[in-house]
Amino acid sequence: MRDLSRDTRFLSINTATLRRERPLAEVVSALARAGIPGIGPWREQIQAIGIKAAVKLIGDHGLAVSGISRAGVFTAKGRAGLQDVLDDNRRAVDEAAGIGARCLVLIGGGLMPGSRDIADARALFAEGLAALLPHARAAHLPLAIEPLHPMYAADRACINTLAQANDLCDALGEGVGVVVDVYHTWWDPGLEHEIARAGARRILAFHLSDWLVPTTDLLLDRGMMGDGVIDLKRIRGWVEAAGFEGMCEVEIFSQRDWWQRSMEEVLRTSVERYKSVC
Amino acid sequence: MRDLSRDTRFLSINTATLRRERPLAEVVSALARAGIPGIGPWREQIQAIGIKAAVKLIGDHGLAVSGISRAGVFTAKGRAGLQDVLDDNRRAVDEAAGIGARCLVLIGGGLMPGSRDIADARALFAEGLAALLPHARAAHLPLAIEPLHPMYAADRACINTLAQANDLCDALGEGVGVVVDVYHTWWDPGLEHEIARAGARRILAFHLSDWLVPTTDLLLDRGMMGDGVIDLKRIRGWVEAAGFEGMCEVEIFSQRDWWQRSMEEVLRTSVERYKSVC
Repeated sequence: MRDLSRDTRFLSINTATLRRERPLAEVVSALARAGIPGIGPWREQIQAIGIKAAVKLIGDHGLAVSGISRAGVFTAKGRAGLQDVLDDNRRAVDEAAGIGARCLVLIGGGLMPGSRDIADARALFAEGLAALLPHARAAHLPLAIEPLHPMYAADRACINTLAQANDLCDALGEGVGVVVDVYHTWWDPGLEHEIARAGARRILAFHLSDWLVPTTDLLLDRGMMGDGVIDLKRIRGWVEAAGFEGMCEVEIFSQRDWWQRSMEEVLRTSVERYKSVC
Repeated sequence: MRDLSRDTRFLSINTATLRRERPLAEVVSALARAGIPGIGPWREQIQAIGIKAAVKLIGDHGLAVSGISRAGVFTAKGRAGLQDVLDDNRRAVDEAAGIGARCLVLIGGGLMPGSRDIADARALFAEGLAALLPHARAAHLPLAIEPLHPMYAADRACINTLAQANDLCDALGEGVGVVVDVYHTWWDPGLEHEIARAGARRILAFHLSDWLVPTTDLLLDRGMMGDGVIDLKRIRGWVEAAGFEGMCEVEIFSQRDWWQRSMEEVLRTSVERYKSVC
């Protein structure tokens, strides 16, 4: 297992941790000042300045892009709207490839509009993913399926376990992998097994935050590493035992707490906790 | 699949739906007035009047007891406190047996105090369950493991999937079964398979409510059947295809909505929805 306590070389910050409406230029320079070498931006931030400017900005500061958030959501407009959603996903692939990202993060999308059929939503996600894959392969851009916590199954993500994501990878072959996010997966009795099953080739990203007790909001109350109950070192141990050598990306949606603080404080704390409790 | 539209003969109401601090006598007479034949009371309500009075009350109104809530929680006081928790569980078995309940509902309990080790919590639950089982067998009282939604893994229940519950049943043999609660399990890609695996002998209770979009509170914002996104008839179909012939128990924790309404309104709506959308 890697020793994270000595430096920040494997640390990346997902920009949602600093509120994703913040301009990319502000975030990039704050990361550089804090000595953090990785960034996981959101598409809106890249689109706001254009890919060319974003590439220059990130390159000038010597940052690595651990992943782009976020695409997938193939269920959003139902079966009839899949082509629309696929068009947007192809643009996301181009953005992610253009910016030299390690992967494009895909989430499932919830139930189709007006539907209660989660099996059908899952089938449509698989269909969308298969349809997107040739474009991503041509762009040499890995697609990373991120299973989200089952509490998001209805309205955000019908892919809820690493087992589902691995099954999709089995079915589709090269060019598609997974994100292991501790927040979404820590409770899963099959987690260790599914991480080993994914292996180094498939684990494209590893996301950090913590589960707070109590959790006061289903979406926006994630904790800073160390403030919650997730056994972070254990899960990282499994991921690294599988061969993962990539960055640890901090992704914290925290309206009541961390989003109220300065970027500098959030980054300083992220570095401290990364070195001590992750 | 049974036709529920014609009468209420398989309908039971978990008393939490009517706020569990309400005296049992009030609830029992409201159920009888509404023509509902089943009840799932909480231990506090029975303890408040004593088993003998509770038996008479329920018997005088001709109600069947579809289950007693709630025991288990073997992790609550850590490994050192297991005997204490077991003592209380044995009292719960006696209460449930004394009242003629179909089963005693057990939940996992969350992480042990101060611990981040969910595997250890799960191991302690298994240990507690095995230690309780002889007493339950002697009382001829089936123990029903209720997996709770993964969002409760930290603070309420380390048993989060029907697969885990089935594994425990496999390991322990006679006298232990499961509760299938649609709220906790609807998202599970393995649900149909695990319901079939459980089979008629093991499925001791079937709980109804609905998943609201949005859900505004992790604990107290369950929906009335039909107001959410769960495909209730499909899940009941799986449960009945497995051979389940028991009652459908409505269990809705709803602070902002149904707990603000009169018992009569809640029961009238429960009956309507039971007949139409379940």
